[in-house]
Amino acid sequence: MERRTNAGGFVSTLDFWFEFGSTYSYPAAMRIGDAARAAGVTVRWQPFLLGPVFQSQGYAQSPILEVPAKAAYMWRDLARLCGKYGLGWQQPSHFPRTSVLGARIACSYADAPWLENFVHAVYRANFAEDRDVGDEAVIAACLRTAGQQAAAVIAHATSEAERPRLRAQGVRAAELGLFGAPSFVVNGELFWGQDRLEDALAWARR
Amino acid sequence: MERRTNAGGFVSTLDFWFEFGSTYSYPAAMRIGDAARAAGVTVRWQPFLLGPVFQSQGYAQSPILEVPAKAAYMWRDLARLCGKYGLGWQQPSHFPRTSVLGARIACSYADAPWLENFVHAVYRANFAEDRDVGDEAVIAACLRTAGQQAAAVIAHATSEAERPRLRAQGVRAAELGLFGAPSFVVNGELFWGQDRLEDALAWARR
Repeated sequence: MERRTNAGGFVSTLDFWFEFGSTYSYPAAMRIGDAARAAGVTVRWQPFLLGPVFQSQGYAQSPILEVPAKAAYMWRDLARLCGKYGLGWQQPSHFPRTSVLGARIACSYADAPWLENFVHAVYRANFAEDRDVGDEAVIAACLRTAGQQAAAVIAHATSEAERPRLRAQGVRAAELGLFGAPSFVVNGELFWGQDRLEDALAWARR
Repeated sequence: MERRTNAGGFVSTLDFWFEFGSTYSYPAAMRIGDAARAAGVTVRWQPFLLGPVFQSQGYAQSPILEVPAKAAYMWRDLARLCGKYGLGWQQPSHFPRTSVLGARIACSYADAPWLENFVHAVYRANFAEDRDVGDEAVIAACLRTAGQQAAAVIAHATSEAERPRLRAQGVRAAELGLFGAPSFVVNGELFWGQDRLEDALAWARR
């Protein structure tokens, strides 16, 4: 990712906390790269798992699924948002899907120049193509889309040496008080929800 | 409120469902009048009470208060949003406050030209001045701010003939499947949350 300086001459960074199974993380993940580059803000990709977060809150699943009318609204809202942002959309036949493998890869290769393309491919698979991103074959296809040798990347990301990274992300998320995704953290300031992306970028440029 | 026609030549209307105790209804209520007039959309003010909605979902209070980290975020988010929109902000010393009296007045005078000013005054009292909008004296002051004879308005809005209006709003909200506030309904399309105001107005102009 190209590094630019903002009007003040210093490099601003934004931590983007995302989960591959999270609906609203999808438009955020697709939009953040271009929006941040236009704003001169550097994105740090911070994959994490929401399951432990919800469990720590006493929920067995995403709180939005606890209220049927709210869950139904979420699907309609997602379809409209994807239309607004020009993103493909197909309501997943299974929800939530998680991708621990995808998250491990994103942890191990957070700074790789191809990571953004991989993230896009995984979200498209889940929310535009209704494919099971928990399936290693689907993740391998996403890696190839990002120009990578799937087998080598997967072997590295799932190695004993690399596996603690995802657990450490969970510890860090808890320390930050994250309660959902997507979340943006800028200089200690938390923004929650894909509709706060622009506010978070504006904060990074203050 | 002045009626205008949009590009298609017909008058678009937007139902604005709000609750005086709702934090995120505050910026929505303050912004919607000007935004709708600029868009050529007519607002129908739809006051309702959230308490029965949350109870029907199995919650004793707003779901956002069930997770302490999320409640803390809400206050910070509100302070930032009010800064962004140029609105006064003071975190209420008591939350949630409800104003059944304010809601009854808004029901009885939904079409009055002064209603918007009254609504603004009540929200300012609650969220910018930390005053108890459940107190009749505070509501009376809000009516005077809107240029009204407080005693006469209160006597009418709380009369036996008028009291069924607020209950009917609750029935209608349930029929519409509303699960929170603010909510915008445009031609049967539901938008939830103050950050969807612009999307709802755009939908009304389609």
